[in-house]
Formats: sequence, C-alpha cells, structure tokens
Amino acid sequence: MSTDQLSVTFAALSDPTRRAILGRLIAGERSVTELAEPFDMSMPAVSKHLRVLERAGLIARGREAQWRPCRIEAAPLKQVADWTERYRHIWEARFDRLDTYLQQMEAKEKAHARKQRRK
Amino acid sequence: MSTDQLSVTFAALSDPTRRAILGRLIAGERSVTELAEPFDMSMPAVSKHLRVLERAGLIARGREAQWRPCRIEAAPLKQVADWTERYRHIWEARFDRLDTYLQQMEAKEKAHARKQRRK
Repeated sequence: MSTDQLSVTFAALSDPTRRAILGRLIAGERSVTELAEPFDMSMPAVSKHLRVLERAGLIARGREAQWRPCRIEAAPLKQVADWTERYRHIWEARFDRLDTYLQQMEAKEKAHARKQRRK
Repeated sequence: MSTDQLSVTFAALSDPTRRAILGRLIAGERSVTELAEPFDMSMPAVSKHLRVLERAGLIARGREAQWRPCRIEAAPLKQVADWTERYRHIWEARFDRLDTYLQQMEAKEKAHARKQRRK
C-alpha cells in the first residue's frame, strides 16, 4: 500500500460505494444514517467506507453536533483533477483524429452517392 | 475488488510507480526496458505494473514490432477527469472563501497601520 496523498486518494476512490457516498455529499452535509440509507449494507460496513474516505481527507466529520455530519473535503479531488490535466492533450488529440476520420468518411460517402445518382 | 471501469482505473492509479510510468509515456512510445530504466526494480516487477495498467486500459502495447512498445490510452483518464468535474464547484467555492478571508485580513492590517501612523 502506498502512503503518498495521491495514492491514498486514488485507492479510496477505487470503490463504487465510496464514490456514491461522495456523490450524495455534493448536495451538502449528511449524517451517517442518511448516507447509509440507499445502500443495502450494514452500518459497520458503511462506517468502514467512511473511515477510508476520512483517512484519505476526502470527507470530514463535524465535532460539534451529536450526529457528527459528514461533508466533502474537495482538496484531494482538486489534486486528482490537476494530475489528470497533464494527459488532457492526449485524449483531445485522439478525439480530433477521430473527428477528422469521420469527416473524411462522410465526404467519401457523399461523393459515392453523387456518383451513383449520375449513373 | 470492484470491476467497474472507473474503480479499476482508480485502483491502477493508486501506485506511484504506475503513475510515474504513465508520466514517462506522455513523451511518446517506450519499450519495457526503457520504462524500467529509472526504477530500482526487477523487470518482472515492472512487467507486473505494466500488466495492471494494460488491464485497466491505461496503456496498450504494440503487436507489430519485436520490442512491443507501450503507449498511453487516455480514454480512462478522460473518464477520471469527467468524474472529478462534478466536484470542481466545491473546491473553487472553498478557494473563493479563502480569497475573501485573506483580502479582509489585508484590509484590516492596512487600516491598523494607518491608525498607528496617525498616533
């Protein structure tokens, strides 16, 4: 297990339940009970996921209120976004090439259709 | 272990060596030997990392050449970037609040300095 921040963040995000929990927190703070609701999962299992997210710094839990609401801490997600930016030109170049290819195919088909009509 | 594409991608990216390998491929295709060079690691260990990246669809290996060069496949990285976009407004709002706070602190300090000069 790697312990650098980005590795810990990626590991925490490699589970669909944990990503769904983060997704629910976009709307605002939620209690553990509220977060557990949509999942067919025991409370200890949900708590375990929350601990992984908390250790990764992806969520924080209030200390004031009795219900200790969870909220998103977005800094590690910004780090992920910044990391992926280095690769953006690669997928954009790829989609540009695909676009050019599709345009060429379309032009060829139109030329073919015109020829057929002239016959 | 989750098997959905995004989970597999995040798991593959949760290792600093695998991210470093991807980073080296930004410049273009590389042989396995070239990729292994900067790492203090056995060839089987490097090959294992490459297999994880290949299974996640993050790299592809040429079939033509004898040296089977590795190249980045950026589609899963685009998926990661798209996923993080949903959270951008959260970290941006946070940085905006921090900005406002710092500006207020600066204004207070200037006001204080003016008062001191008048004395």
